[in-house]
Amino acid sequence: MSASVAGLLREIADVGRDATRGGWSRFVFDDAEMVLREWFVEQAQRRSLEVETDRNGAIWAWRHGSGGPGTGGRAIVTGSHLDSVPGGGEYDGPLGVASALAALDLLEARGVRSEKPLAVVAFPEEEGARFGVACLGSRLMAGAIDPDRARGLRDADGRTFAEVAAAAGLDVERIGPDPERLAGLEAFVELHVEQGRGLVDLGQPVAIGSSILGHGRWRFSVTGEGNHAGTTRMLDRRDPMVVAAGIVLATREVAAGHPDARATVGRVVPVPGGTNVIASRVDLWLDARHPDDAVTAAVVAAIHERARAVAAAEGCTVELVEESYGGTVHFDAGLSGRLGRVLPEAPVLDTGAGHDAGVLAGSLPTAMLFTRNPTGVSHSPEEACEDTDAEAGAAALADVLEDLLRP
Amino acid sequence: MSASVAGLLREIADVGRDATRGGWSRFVFDDAEMVLREWFVEQAQRRSLEVETDRNGAIWAWRHGSGGPGTGGRAIVTGSHLDSVPGGGEYDGPLGVASALAALDLLEARGVRSEKPLAVVAFPEEEGARFGVACLGSRLMAGAIDPDRARGLRDADGRTFAEVAAAAGLDVERIGPDPERLAGLEAFVELHVEQGRGLVDLGQPVAIGSSILGHGRWRFSVTGEGNHAGTTRMLDRRDPMVVAAGIVLATREVAAGHPDARATVGRVVPVPGGTNVIASRVDLWLDARHPDDAVTAAVVAAIHERARAVAAAEGCTVELVEESYGGTVHFDAGLSGRLGRVLPEAPVLDTGAGHDAGVLAGSLPTAMLFTRNPTGVSHSPEEACEDTDAEAGAAALADVLEDLLRP
Repeated sequence: MSASVAGLLREIADVGRDATRGGWSRFVFDDAEMVLREWFVEQAQRRSLEVETDRNGAIWAWRHGSGGPGTGGRAIVTGSHLDSVPGGGEYDGPLGVASALAALDLLEARGVRSEKPLAVVAFPEEEGARFGVACLGSRLMAGAIDPDRARGLRDADGRTFAEVAAAAGLDVERIGPDPERLAGLEAFVELHVEQGRGLVDLGQPVAIGSSILGHGRWRFSVTGEGNHAGTTRMLDRRDPMVVAAGIVLATREVAAGHPDARATVGRVVPVPGGTNVIASRVDLWLDARHPDDAVTAAVVAAIHERARAVAAAEGCTVELVEESYGGTVHFDAGLSGRLGRVLPEAPVLDTGAGHDAGVLAGSLPTAMLFTRNPTGVSHSPEEACEDTDAEAGAAALADVLEDLLRP
Repeated sequence: MSASVAGLLREIADVGRDATRGGWSRFVFDDAEMVLREWFVEQAQRRSLEVETDRNGAIWAWRHGSGGPGTGGRAIVTGSHLDSVPGGGEYDGPLGVASALAALDLLEARGVRSEKPLAVVAFPEEEGARFGVACLGSRLMAGAIDPDRARGLRDADGRTFAEVAAAAGLDVERIGPDPERLAGLEAFVELHVEQGRGLVDLGQPVAIGSSILGHGRWRFSVTGEGNHAGTTRMLDRRDPMVVAAGIVLATREVAAGHPDARATVGRVVPVPGGTNVIASRVDLWLDARHPDDAVTAAVVAAIHERARAVAAAEGCTVELVEESYGGTVHFDAGLSGRLGRVLPEAPVLDTGAGHDAGVLAGSLPTAMLFTRNPTGVSHSPEEACEDTDAEAGAAALADVLEDLLRP
């Protein structure tokens, strides 16, 4: 068999469509993501790959070395994730998984066998859209998050990761670092739809990743006094929504003052959230990134200082919690250099987006390929990928894998 | 039987507790509110009252005149509502219903019979917490909202009022004005927990209402461009959250510039609402009130003008929709005067909160009693009512009803 990337994605195009937000919402272990996981397992089985789910919920589909399971040394791995942001596009994640499957088909068609094992992996909760920590699966595997903290993370309905993962079949007592598995991997190459306009501007279908901006998430909780919107005089109010608005504007102003910084408030949750109620608390989340970790820290500190000042003026209190942080990641120079020799036409681009390949860069050589996105828009239904570019991406990935599988 | 108000409220104290927000969340026709409706029906049946649900979902419990159903002329009605705001207190609504039941018991104990019929009513969706229009039941009855518009109102899950009301047993084709029913009513007296500190400051347990501030709800929808929080440069953004923050601050500033004006943003919904996503749209709701309708209009216009300016600066668009509006209501002078003669100690207070008695003031003489709230806080779990004040309120209501039942 030899599947096209577009053909594979068409099979799952109706899974997790979001009628309210538009686009797709596929949250780890929800109905939609479970359907995608089953689809991936079925695709792997059709290719006679050996499927296993690891202790952290990542699904691995193995092509064993010519000598059979356990032979051939360390493995070459490709893949990405199946989950999405709320109302996201259809390529962010699944394009990398579908391209990996198509690349394996190309290797079969080319008759490429190898001693080295080859695997396609699908990581869980890359977006952090359900439990708030991005790249949760790869972080657990790499020991970059405490398993107790992961077990206690809660989704918007108040359910813990432990509850939800157990319901999906994981032994949640066993989640956490997996050094043995990591020791068996030689390299991980993740293909992803580009999340900007770099390839559009350069007129190329595929790029090689160089680095990932340092990236963190922080939660501000502003506490005031809940009261009736009609009976409470303006002067008597301690309204956390006014403080939250000040934090949003401070975020914009502080980030705009630092070239290359990005800072965003995309999620705001007033409690109780009624139209005729002054909120008692507002939670809002800050996403901040910069190539220099010290600048990211300075941006967050400056926003926090502004937040404290507006909170004090309103008689409210503000609490800041870091939910996740990863410093700027430069992909392995040797591995990226090898990709560059295989794909001499491909430009080298950095990205502001986090990826499992970034988290795993501390544990083994990792690299990324980006496939052109004609709109340059990401985390939105406007995200796009032409069929011909998707096939070019899979072919480039097959070229890279063929090279890496050489002894 | 002769029930205490506190005893009645204890029976329903566990219904609709909100573990996430604190307090109680009882939204029209949800599980909790349906339990309260059943409880009310059961209480009415225990008192041999005749129960009927009208075309708009209000429940009426009738004590017929001495001559039986259909005799005795126009009815005296008391009651309130059972639904709550999200995470509200336990008295806002149910205190009026429980006080009405207790007042009927007091009339029984006093041997008060009458030719005139007497009814206790529980109106649906007084808070507008589920479908966005406050006093929806009384508005429908009074013809103050188009039934087609009401049928199409949607809750946060996207379900229409028509769907939800039909599931609760209403014939939704028949909702709308009920002039025959209104013509059969002589007066409506609603008892409510006070939503401010007027009675605390005056050292009195019960007040008579004089007027309700003009009150409306408007929805701002700000549209920008959804994109990735990490890959989109600050200068390239069209972020509706920044505009929403500007609207919140404009609301505070404009309202603070008009003595007696109240304006609040308590509900903000970013779409899609992910931490690592620049929102594509933000909806936010403005609640604005002032005794002078022209000032309310001027406040909203000034906020709208500021909203357009911040939206234009951010490359976003903003749309403003009036969801509901009611002008300042002065309760019927003759009826309020009669209450004042029955309760000579009771102070006369106005209120910033909307009520079904305000909506119905255009259709028949209405009046209100307020029972002291020691915290003065409303639409919050901090709302309170001492048991002795609750009994004093029911006794005052019984005195008023006894007077009104005289031929």
